[in-house]
Amino acid sequence: MERVPILKIGGVLLVSIQIDLQDQSVLALQEDLAEKISTTGAHGVVIDISAVEIVDSFIGRMFATIASISQLFDADTVVVGMRPAVAITLVELGLTLGGVRTALDLERGMKILRVLGEQRRGPSSDEDADPLRALL
Amino acid sequence: MERVPILKIGGVLLVSIQIDLQDQSVLALQEDLAEKISTTGAHGVVIDISAVEIVDSFIGRMFATIASISQLFDADTVVVGMRPAVAITLVELGLTLGGVRTALDLERGMKILRVLGEQRRGPSSDEDADPLRALL
Repeated sequence: MERVPILKIGGVLLVSIQIDLQDQSVLALQEDLAEKISTTGAHGVVIDISAVEIVDSFIGRMFATIASISQLFDADTVVVGMRPAVAITLVELGLTLGGVRTALDLERGMKILRVLGEQRRGPSSDEDADPLRALL
Repeated sequence: MERVPILKIGGVLLVSIQIDLQDQSVLALQEDLAEKISTTGAHGVVIDISAVEIVDSFIGRMFATIASISQLFDADTVVVGMRPAVAITLVELGLTLGGVRTALDLERGMKILRVLGEQRRGPSSDEDADPLRALL
């Protein structure tokens, strides 16, 4: 079983999905992500799907599940890099991503996470607590 | 043929290798990366291989080639996330990465890129020109 690596950039965890996700891989990813948010105290999760060409309701549910897990750790989730064809398929099939936020690319996704974090925790957090602020 | 996505974070391009790289995929990645460095003006490339379980001399040459291409665009290359087993295999087989720099994880790799960038372009570059400075 292939595992999807989880990368840490400041207070954000980055998951870049490139493999065809099987049930076991998805479960492993959810477990790994919960573990990693818990140990790193990350405040945001970015899921990059720029390499994903086909989505179905199973993938859609995965995003929603990951977002729910992240929320339990007070972390926000943004899906970035969706291909136009994927977006069209989602709409045509009437699938939703379970209310998960989306952004055009990684940088915009990180910007959204920063804004969401400030809304929740207040803008008083200093630069050290939010090192992404200066990046975006 | 699967393509490896290239993500942009500030002035750094991130390549996370998760698929088994075939000859065609490697050539495509090199082309895509050259194109992306050229269009974005990135000053660094991070190649994450935390999902790579097996390396051979072909992969080793790929790192060296990518580093050479990046250098032609005045960008530095760092390989991060190598598994212990992979490192041991490389040494046992007597393979080198063609002098490519390595780092333990993504954050340390980005720190190295920042330092290398400052050494080349001087520390006078302001925060706007190097938004990664405050991140690391």
